[in-house]
Amino acid sequence: MRRIVTLLTDFGLSDPFVGMMKGVILGINPHAVLVDLCHGSKAYEPSEAAFALITAYRFFPQGTIHVAVIDPGVGGPRRPLLVTCDGHLFIGPDNGLLAPLAEKAESSGVRAITATRYFLHPVSVTFHGRDIFAPVAAHLSLGVEPAELGEPIDDYVRLTLPRAAPFGTSGIKGEILHIDRFGNLVTNVTRVDLKHLAAGDLPAEFLVHVAGLEVPIVAYYGQVAPGVPGAVIGSADCLEIFVNQGDASRLLGVGRGAEVVVGRKDGEESRL
Amino acid sequence: MRRIVTLLTDFGLSDPFVGMMKGVILGINPHAVLVDLCHGSKAYEPSEAAFALITAYRFFPQGTIHVAVIDPGVGGPRRPLLVTCDGHLFIGPDNGLLAPLAEKAESSGVRAITATRYFLHPVSVTFHGRDIFAPVAAHLSLGVEPAELGEPIDDYVRLTLPRAAPFGTSGIKGEILHIDRFGNLVTNVTRVDLKHLAAGDLPAEFLVHVAGLEVPIVAYYGQVAPGVPGAVIGSADCLEIFVNQGDASRLLGVGRGAEVVVGRKDGEESRL
Amino acid sequence: MRRIVTLLTDFGLSDPFVGMMKGVILGINPHAVLVDLCHGSKAYEPSEAAFALITAYRFFPQGTIHVAVIDPGVGGPRRPLLVTCDGHLFIGPDNGLLAPLAEKAESSGVRAITATRYFLHPVSVTFHGRDIFAPVAAHLSLGVEPAELGEPIDDYVRLTLPRAAPFGTSGIKGEILHIDRFGNLVTNVTRVDLKHLAAGDLPAEFLVHVAGLEVPIVAYYGQVAPGVPGAVIGSADCLEIFVNQGDASRLLGVGRGAEVVVGRKDGEESRL
Repeated sequence: MRRIVTLLTDFGLSDPFVGMMKGVILGINPHAVLVDLCHGSKAYEPSEAAFALITAYRFFPQGTIHVAVIDPGVGGPRRPLLVTCDGHLFIGPDNGLLAPLAEKAESSGVRAITATRYFLHPVSVTFHGRDIFAPVAAHLSLGVEPAELGEPIDDYVRLTLPRAAPFGTSGIKGEILHIDRFGNLVTNVTRVDLKHLAAGDLPAEFLVHVAGLEVPIVAYYGQVAPGVPGAVIGSADCLEIFVNQGDASRLLGVGRGAEVVVGRKDGEESRL
Repeated sequence: MRRIVTLLTDFGLSDPFVGMMKGVILGINPHAVLVDLCHGSKAYEPSEAAFALITAYRFFPQGTIHVAVIDPGVGGPRRPLLVTCDGHLFIGPDNGLLAPLAEKAESSGVRAITATRYFLHPVSVTFHGRDIFAPVAAHLSLGVEPAELGEPIDDYVRLTLPRAAPFGTSGIKGEILHIDRFGNLVTNVTRVDLKHLAAGDLPAEFLVHVAGLEVPIVAYYGQVAPGVPGAVIGSADCLEIFVNQGDASRLLGVGRGAEVVVGRKDGEESRL
Repeated sequence: MRRIVTLLTDFGLSDPFVGMMKGVILGINPHAVLVDLCHGSKAYEPSEAAFALITAYRFFPQGTIHVAVIDPGVGGPRRPLLVTCDGHLFIGPDNGLLAPLAEKAESSGVRAITATRYFLHPVSVTFHGRDIFAPVAAHLSLGVEPAELGEPIDDYVRLTLPRAAPFGTSGIKGEILHIDRFGNLVTNVTRVDLKHLAAGDLPAEFLVHVAGLEVPIVAYYGQVAPGVPGAVIGSADCLEIFVNQGDASRLLGVGRGAEVVVGRKDGEESRL
């Protein structure tokens, strides 16, 4: 069964944690195709990884099984979840990490995993990635049905990623959701939000207000000079503030949660 | 031959060293299943990686070939080793890295690799991972027998990971063996050591003395408040000191080799 | 089609960028064998990655497809390239990253990729790794011919890695091309350059002048004491300055581009 299993964790690469998960999976399904999604997610922050997961999963083929482990509550009462959404399967702790996918899931698409016969025993209290999530993923990759893993639930932990909202007469206010490896500031202002502002493809008459600066919206990074900030619709279909060949987060001195306003050049938002 | 070959190195990910090893292996056995164990091991410290390897290997299926390369002596007189242990094969330099496995190996389970016909020629003096260990692993994955690689030896470099010992009338003294990516302090006090102290599953009447603090032993991380230290039996079956959702190594200011004493709350160890 | 596809990027591991590329490739060719070459290449510096690529590719079997994405010009006028060289295929942006390979390519071995039917649509302006390079690699791995992807070109962006040159009566002057993960200083003085200096295998009568120091050329790291600098012919067949069990770049205070002179112990170069 050549099923793809992806792994997203906050385990880094200086410990063999990810390797052990792969060992467990291949021990159960030697034909599983393992793909690292990322392992440098911020520890203890499910919302960061939730954004990564919802951005990335749709680039995998249907039937892919995604295992996500940012799990500060491991060993305690928090439940292991299985979410079925868009033809993909997601496994992880019930702490908000899978919540954006659970919201999109079809009926009975969210289950609490209780079938301990698919776990690796004895189950440790600190590493359910290895002892619960990995073996469950492996069994799913062999054809075990979601219904065999546990009952549907509806009281999973919610996590609402903040959404951009109208601002003033012709603006949008959003915030920075994620800083990527290059220091780009990925916001929650989507391509669709921007389409509502302006009919055209590239709202050249709009500016982004961030960190006290007015930043132009351009078509690609190279349209501003090296070292100069700009904004672009990034690969997650969200407005992204960058510094050409530089680190916007460091140079603008802003991080996650910082406010971002998009407005007309001559609009009232420009007098912020 | 779909044999699993794992790789553990101190090569990091900013150079193509690990990639080249994989290229060499797949050139010899296109069906090898390659798994990264970890590549962020501390450079020049075989004992760190020895702990990672002995902790991780048993989560892979029997027959797995593990290649470990922390190799400050590369190019010099140190020998390449092959260790057979618990149905797994281990390849690496003779510098202590494989010693804990060699101690567990069956008779004639430790060999010096001398069969240069399995090497990649010319052999460089700085990268035996690519030129010796990788091609040897690939040939083993195709079915070459350990005996074809070299003669059994018994004078391999020893490395004894320090063990916990009884302390006072009812205590155990151990030390910190490893700091994981989260800053957790993994000690050499094992689950079995703790069982000898107390009959029950969770010795709630015991405390851990570390860095001048008294730390409670709890069942899982979340039993102490965020930012508070605790101790738990971790996934390596060793006592592990943590700070809930924090970095214990940084917050307690201790590192590898620091002393840890487990004792009764009212015992003499508590007057340390 | 079990074709190997390698990935070299500056994407790091804290974002799911590399994972998404793999999802796209496996969605097109589920049997592709994916290998990470490295993902910690310096952002915005194609020349660093060009050196890594030209050093690494020949350790993979013929027919391997190498995808390289250091791409500050993404979304702008820079073209996507396909280079055929030594029986390997290389895909990446036309910014110098593939230039050393393009120079070695056979006739009509360099093509501008224009066949948009092999792209992932809609093509983002910030992530051609996912939307152009990955799907093109996947289609090539299924047997699509290079000629189907675009016309041969000859005006690709050049990048000449600096070469060592004769210096004085019996010396060579070169420079540091790359600092590896251990802090070793990899120079552009090759084994062949050194052979021209001296007939013997190990020019013991030569010294390396770097950072105001005179460093001996030795046969392997361990021939100098821990903490002491030396020079060795490294795994890329280039002279490499190291500090035994230490970080030469930090300890000698030099970086990329620094001058290195190899000369006879008693030659005029020694009076530099």
